[in-house]
Amino acid sequence: MPHLHMEYTDNLPGLNADVALLRFNHALAGSGQFADEFDIKSRAVQVGAFRVGTGMGERGFVAVRLAILSGRSPAIKKQLSDSLLAVLQDVCEWPAGVEVQLCVEVLDIDRESYTKTAIGR
Amino acid sequence: MPHLHMEYTDNLPGLNADVALLRFNHALAGSGQFADEFDIKSRAVQVGAFRVGTGMGERGFVAVRLAILSGRSPAIKKQLSDSLLAVLQDVCEWPAGVEVQLCVEVLDIDRESYTKTAIGR
Amino acid sequence: MPHLHMEYTDNLPGLNADVALLRFNHALAGSGQFADEFDIKSRAVQVGAFRVGTGMGERGFVAVRLAILSGRSPAIKKQLSDSLLAVLQDVCEWPAGVEVQLCVEVLDIDRESYTKTAIGR
Repeated sequence: MPHLHMEYTDNLPGLNADVALLRFNHALAGSGQFADEFDIKSRAVQVGAFRVGTGMGERGFVAVRLAILSGRSPAIKKQLSDSLLAVLQDVCEWPAGVEVQLCVEVLDIDRESYTKTAIGR
Repeated sequence: MPHLHMEYTDNLPGLNADVALLRFNHALAGSGQFADEFDIKSRAVQVGAFRVGTGMGERGFVAVRLAILSGRSPAIKKQLSDSLLAVLQDVCEWPAGVEVQLCVEVLDIDRESYTKTAIGR
Repeated sequence: MPHLHMEYTDNLPGLNADVALLRFNHALAGSGQFADEFDIKSRAVQVGAFRVGTGMGERGFVAVRLAILSGRSPAIKKQLSDSLLAVLQDVCEWPAGVEVQLCVEVLDIDRESYTKTAIGR
């Protein structure tokens, strides 16, 4: 942990997922919340089948989920969420004519049952 | 929020993901639980690598997850879940000879650390 | 339920997702925690866009999430997590020169709002 997931709709050609993930990871490493940068595992998935609401007009979204081991305070979670949203707002030239929603969620991983190991390190 | 995810196995040729998502969104908008239809963000992912149980025979599933901001009552969550399952049961001509499981989960998004913004609106 | 998700980065050519899922399912069926093997629904997604940390060097990960209906004890969750990690460690010839993180998370599904049905059974 932490684990970061980014989902983005396929009508955002200006969004470079690799660049976004690297910038998220730097923001997380810089937060001081995670002892080892190596632990930050981020991935992005482009979403081809999606629907925003019921209205017409072109719409899209980028949804980021950050999963961290349980125990951090609400204030720290909010801080992490704000910092990721700030990166997201800055990372892309958003297309004209598309209503794009950006959102960041922080969720807990159950600490007691989380297991992991590393190979080749 | 709300965020809806639909995963469906790739042995269900009769399932039209776009139609399913639009019908889910209409059900959610009609529930009266969400102030703005624009907030409903749904996506579908077809799953090519999957395994149901350990037995033989062709099996598949459709798994829907609805994530909503924390604070709603268990009764409302159950209602939302039931209404999405009803849509799902009705949305597809299921293939003969495949045992298909349909399921709907409702989960909370931590309200305090959820951040979002909209661009181009 | 249970639902199992495996995400794996695309730099692990030795990982056979189908084999891994079948072995996970056998481990879960053998745990005695689930009444019917048919209920175990597992899927795998290969992740092409990912970033581990901020450092250089080739890195990858396999992240398994097991979602089960709420109510099981921490000890049972830990046991399930350990048994899945054991399968994961054993299921692949890991590539030389890649630092690979393996992790398993167990999370609860809200029992009250979970709905499901089966077709063709």
